[in-house]
Amino acid sequence: MKIIIVGGVAGGATAAARMRRMDEQADIILYEKGYFISSATCGLPYYIGGEIRQREDLLLQNPQGLHRRYALTVRVDTEVIAIDLGAKTVTVRRRRSRQVYVETFDKLLLSTGAEPIRPPLAGADHPAVFTLRTLMDAEAIREHIRQCDPSPGVAVVVGGGFIGLEMAENLHKAGFEVHLVEKADQVIAPLDYAMACIAHQQMKQRRIHLWLGQEVAQFEAQPTGRRLEVQLQGGRSILADLVILSVGVRPDISLARTAGLETGPLGGIVVNPFMQTSHPDVYAVGDAVEVYHPVAAAPMHLPLAGPAHKQARIAADNIIEGNLSTYNGTIGVAIAKIFDLTVASAGASGKLLKRLNIPYLASYTHGFSHATYYPTPSALSIKILFSPQDGRLLGAQIAGVDGIDKRIEMLSQVIQRQGTVYDLQQLEHAYAPPYSSATDPVNEAGSVAVNILTGRVKVVHWTEIPLLDFTKDYLLDVRSASEYSEVHIEGATLIPIDELRKHLDEIPRNRRIIVYCAVGKRGYIAARILMQNGFTEVYNLSGGIRTYHFAMR
Amino acid sequence: MKIIIVGGVAGGATAAARMRRMDEQADIILYEKGYFISSATCGLPYYIGGEIRQREDLLLQNPQGLHRRYALTVRVDTEVIAIDLGAKTVTVRRRRSRQVYVETFDKLLLSTGAEPIRPPLAGADHPAVFTLRTLMDAEAIREHIRQCDPSPGVAVVVGGGFIGLEMAENLHKAGFEVHLVEKADQVIAPLDYAMACIAHQQMKQRRIHLWLGQEVAQFEAQPTGRRLEVQLQGGRSILADLVILSVGVRPDISLARTAGLETGPLGGIVVNPFMQTSHPDVYAVGDAVEVYHPVAAAPMHLPLAGPAHKQARIAADNIIEGNLSTYNGTIGVAIAKIFDLTVASAGASGKLLKRLNIPYLASYTHGFSHATYYPTPSALSIKILFSPQDGRLLGAQIAGVDGIDKRIEMLSQVIQRQGTVYDLQQLEHAYAPPYSSATDPVNEAGSVAVNILTGRVKVVHWTEIPLLDFTKDYLLDVRSASEYSEVHIEGATLIPIDELRKHLDEIPRNRRIIVYCAVGKRGYIAARILMQNGFTEVYNLSGGIRTYHFAMR
Repeated sequence: MKIIIVGGVAGGATAAARMRRMDEQADIILYEKGYFISSATCGLPYYIGGEIRQREDLLLQNPQGLHRRYALTVRVDTEVIAIDLGAKTVTVRRRRSRQVYVETFDKLLLSTGAEPIRPPLAGADHPAVFTLRTLMDAEAIREHIRQCDPSPGVAVVVGGGFIGLEMAENLHKAGFEVHLVEKADQVIAPLDYAMACIAHQQMKQRRIHLWLGQEVAQFEAQPTGRRLEVQLQGGRSILADLVILSVGVRPDISLARTAGLETGPLGGIVVNPFMQTSHPDVYAVGDAVEVYHPVAAAPMHLPLAGPAHKQARIAADNIIEGNLSTYNGTIGVAIAKIFDLTVASAGASGKLLKRLNIPYLASYTHGFSHATYYPTPSALSIKILFSPQDGRLLGAQIAGVDGIDKRIEMLSQVIQRQGTVYDLQQLEHAYAPPYSSATDPVNEAGSVAVNILTGRVKVVHWTEIPLLDFTKDYLLDVRSASEYSEVHIEGATLIPIDELRKHLDEIPRNRRIIVYCAVGKRGYIAARILMQNGFTEVYNLSGGIRTYHFAMR
Repeated sequence: MKIIIVGGVAGGATAAARMRRMDEQADIILYEKGYFISSATCGLPYYIGGEIRQREDLLLQNPQGLHRRYALTVRVDTEVIAIDLGAKTVTVRRRRSRQVYVETFDKLLLSTGAEPIRPPLAGADHPAVFTLRTLMDAEAIREHIRQCDPSPGVAVVVGGGFIGLEMAENLHKAGFEVHLVEKADQVIAPLDYAMACIAHQQMKQRRIHLWLGQEVAQFEAQPTGRRLEVQLQGGRSILADLVILSVGVRPDISLARTAGLETGPLGGIVVNPFMQTSHPDVYAVGDAVEVYHPVAAAPMHLPLAGPAHKQARIAADNIIEGNLSTYNGTIGVAIAKIFDLTVASAGASGKLLKRLNIPYLASYTHGFSHATYYPTPSALSIKILFSPQDGRLLGAQIAGVDGIDKRIEMLSQVIQRQGTVYDLQQLEHAYAPPYSSATDPVNEAGSVAVNILTGRVKVVHWTEIPLLDFTKDYLLDVRSASEYSEVHIEGATLIPIDELRKHLDEIPRNRRIIVYCAVGKRGYIAARILMQNGFTEVYNLSGGIRTYHFAMR
C-alpha cells in the first residue's frame, strides 16, 4: 500500500506516525511545502514575544528524525500542485529546483491546513504588515522587531480573536505600545459580550489600546521612515511600526477543489465521520475540513489543534484498517491566556444560538477558584447556555485567573456528551481546599440553571436593566447598606436581604420586581422570599451587579 | 410542616438553607451538638499548620447569621439523644444546662457525620495524643503545639490517608520533625502502590520519616516531661511531643441505629436514591450514610464533603417537594496536596477491583501539564484501570505538580458517565500552550489503553520485571545509549529505537520479549515494529522505566 500525505504541520505528521505504527510495510510519503514539519503553530505568539526562546523548541520533529523513527519518506519544501483522482496520482513540485514529477497513491490524506485571511486593503503589502501562520511568518516578524530601533515602538493588531489577543500580549511583553483594532464591539467572538468585557477590562489594565467597532480603511506608507499609518474607517489613525493582521483563517482547499473533491458552504473540505472525502481513497483532516458540530447540528469550520490531531489518528486507522473509527465531531473548545486572565469557551455562544434559531436560556454565576478560607482564592465568572426544553447544556464561557482550564474541561465534557444542567449540578468533583470548594463553581452554575429551568426563579439579564421603566418596574438592591453606598444601579431601592422579611409591605405589588445583589446569590434568596409571599412578577438579575458592571463599564 | 435536622456541619446546614429557599413557611429546626455550624472541616489541617490564620475563616456561617438570612431555628451545643419513629419525636439535650426536652417533627434529616476511629491502644489517652475531626479538636492541637516549647519537636502521625498526609505536611510547616506511621506498605489507600510511591518520594524529599508496614503497639508516657514514646510493633519506637491518630472515620450512627433505622454492612445508614432511610419520613446524608458506588456496583462508605453537599440539596428537595430528585451515587473522587505534589484518584483502584473480583486492565502513562515548548511544563503520571470487555473506565489515579486537579476532573467524569477509554481518547479538550498539549495526557492515556484493549500492544507491569527468567525472557531497552548508560534495568540489552529495524536479527525469536523505554512511548513503537516482523510474544513495559523506578526505589 502506498499512502501520500499532503501537509506535515500537525495532522499530517501525526497521521504518518500512526500509520507506520499500524503498518510496518506501507509506503508512506509525506509532502510539506514549507521547510518545517511538526511545528508548534500555537506557540508562535510566544516565540515572537520571547517566552519561547529557541526556534528548536517549536520543532517537535524534523524530517530526518521522523524518517529514522518511522521509516517515512519526508519531502519538505515540496508542494503537491495537483491531484488526479481518476489516475490516483499527485503532481509534485520541488520548490527550490522547480522539478515537477508525478507520484501514484493508493490512499491520499490531505492535511493542507488553513491560510490567514488577508483583507484586500490598500497598503496591506507594506513590509511592516504581517500575518502569522507559519514559523517563517514568525521569523519574519521577529526580524522586523529586531530592526525596529531604537525601541519597539507601536504595534497594531487587527483582529481580536484568540491569536490576536495572544499577539497583543506578546507584543506588549516585547516592549511595544499595542493597539488592537476589532470590527465587532468585542474581542473573542465565541464569548458573549458581557464575558468578553472581562477580557476588555484586563487588556485596558495592561494598557492595550482597544479600538472596538473599528475597521481598518487602509494602510499608508510614510514618506520618510519605516512607519506606516493605519487609517481607520471612522477617520482616526495610528502611526505604527508593526501591523499584525489576525482576522481569521480560511481552509486551504485549492488543491482539493481543483481535484473535484466536494467542499462545503463554509469553505472546507467535506468529510464523513470516517474523515473520508467525497472520494473513497482520499481522506482529509484538520483546519482544511468542515466537521460536524453537535450543538449547532451542522458542519462548522473550527481550526483547532486538538481536533486536528484526533482526526489524524482516526483517518490513519481508517486508511490502514478500513473504515472502523469514527470522529464524534467538534464542539469548539478554546482557551487563551490574556496576561493574568484566562478565558475559555465551549459549545455555542448566545450569539451563535440566536443565529441558528436554537432556543436557549442563559445564566451567569461567579465563584472562586478554590475554598475561600484557603489562601489566595481568585474570582471566576461563568456563563452557561442551556435548552429551555430539557436543560441540555449548549455552551459555556469562563473567565478568571486560576482554575479556568479545569472548569472548561468539566463543562465541555457535559456538552460533548449531550448532558444537561442537572448533570452539572451533580458532577462529583475533586475537593480539597487548595483546589475547589465543597460545591464547585461548576456545580453552582448547574444548580442556578436548574432553578431557572424549573421555574424556581425567573431571571433578567444585564441588557434589560437600561430598559427598565420605573413606573412599571421596581429595582431592589438586597446587598448591605455599605455595598449599596459604594455603588449601586441608578433607581434601585435598598433593602438588605436579612431585613427583607420585615419590609415586605414597602414593596409595591403592582410592579414587576427586579432584585439584584453582588453576584446573584442573595438576589435569588430574596426572589424566593418574595415569590412565596405573593409577589408574582419577581426577577433576579443574573450574575448580579458584577456581570452588569462588566458589561456596562 | 416541621422539619428537624440533626447535625449542622456540612450537609445539615446546606439542607436547611435549601429547604427555606424552597419553602418560606416550613418550621425548620437545626440541632448541632458542637458549638459551630457550617465549619470547614477540610480546612482544619491548614488551620493547624498556620496557612489558614483565623478560626473565623473556617466558619462559613454562624447560628445568628443563618437565622437572620434563612429564618431557621438553630440550636448549637444541643444534642439529639433519641428518636421515636412511632411518635415522630426527637429527644433533645442542651449540653450546658443538661435540660432535656422532646420535639415533634414531620420530617427528619440526619446529618450526623462520622467520628474518628480511635484504636484501642494502651496509652492512647495520653494528653499528647489527638484525633482531628472538629474545629474543637483543631483548637486543642493548636493549643498543645503552643505549649511545646522551646520548639515544636517531634510529631507522629498515625495513618497515611489524605488527612494524615495533610497533617504531616502542616505539622512539618509548623516546625515539627514529622514521622508518619502507616500499617499498609503505602500511603493513600485509593492509589495503587506504584502511584503511592510518587507520594512517598515527595515526602522523603521533604524529610518526612515514613514508617510503612508498621503499626503502633502502644503509647508510653515518659516518667518526666510531656513527651510520650510511640512504640511500634516491630520493636522500634519514636519519642514524640505530639501524636495525631488519623486512621480513618466511621459513620456516627448511634442515634439512627438505636431508633431502629436500617444500617448497612459498612456501618452507615442505609438510604435509597432519594436519600431516604428505611423510615419514609427520615432522610440522611453525608458521612453517616452508605451510598451506591457505580463502579463497585455496591454500597460504599465514602466520607467526602462534595457528595455530602449534593446529597443535602437532594434530600432537602425531596423533603419539601416529595421524592422527585435522585442521587446518582458516589464514585469517590479525592485529591490531596502533599507539599508541591498533588495526588488524586477517582473510581476504583486495582486493589479494590481485585477484592471485588472485577476484571480489569491497567495502563500507566506519563505526560506534561502543558506544551513542553512553553515555559515550565511539569511532569505528571497517570494510571487508569479499565474493563477488558468493553473498555469502560473503572478508575484513574494521577500524581504530579501542576494540572492534576484538571485531569482528575476529565477522567472522573468519564467514570461517572460509565464511559470508556475510547471516550478518553476522543475527549475534546481546551488547548493553548500554557494549559495543555494538542493531545492532552488524558487523551494519551486513552489511546494507550485502546491500543492495549484492541491487542495492538501487549503490556507487562513493573511487578513482573523482578520475576523475569532470562532463559525465557529477553529484556530490550530501546532508549538512547546515553540514557542506558545512566541507568537501566539489570539484564536489559540496548538497541535504540531508531536502530531497531536494522538489528532485528540480533533479537532471539524463541524468547518472550519485554521492551521498555523511559515512559512507554518508544517501547510501544518498538513493540509494533517487532510484532509486525514476526515476533509474536512482545510486551511493552507499561509506564516505562519511570513507573518501574517509582515502585522499586
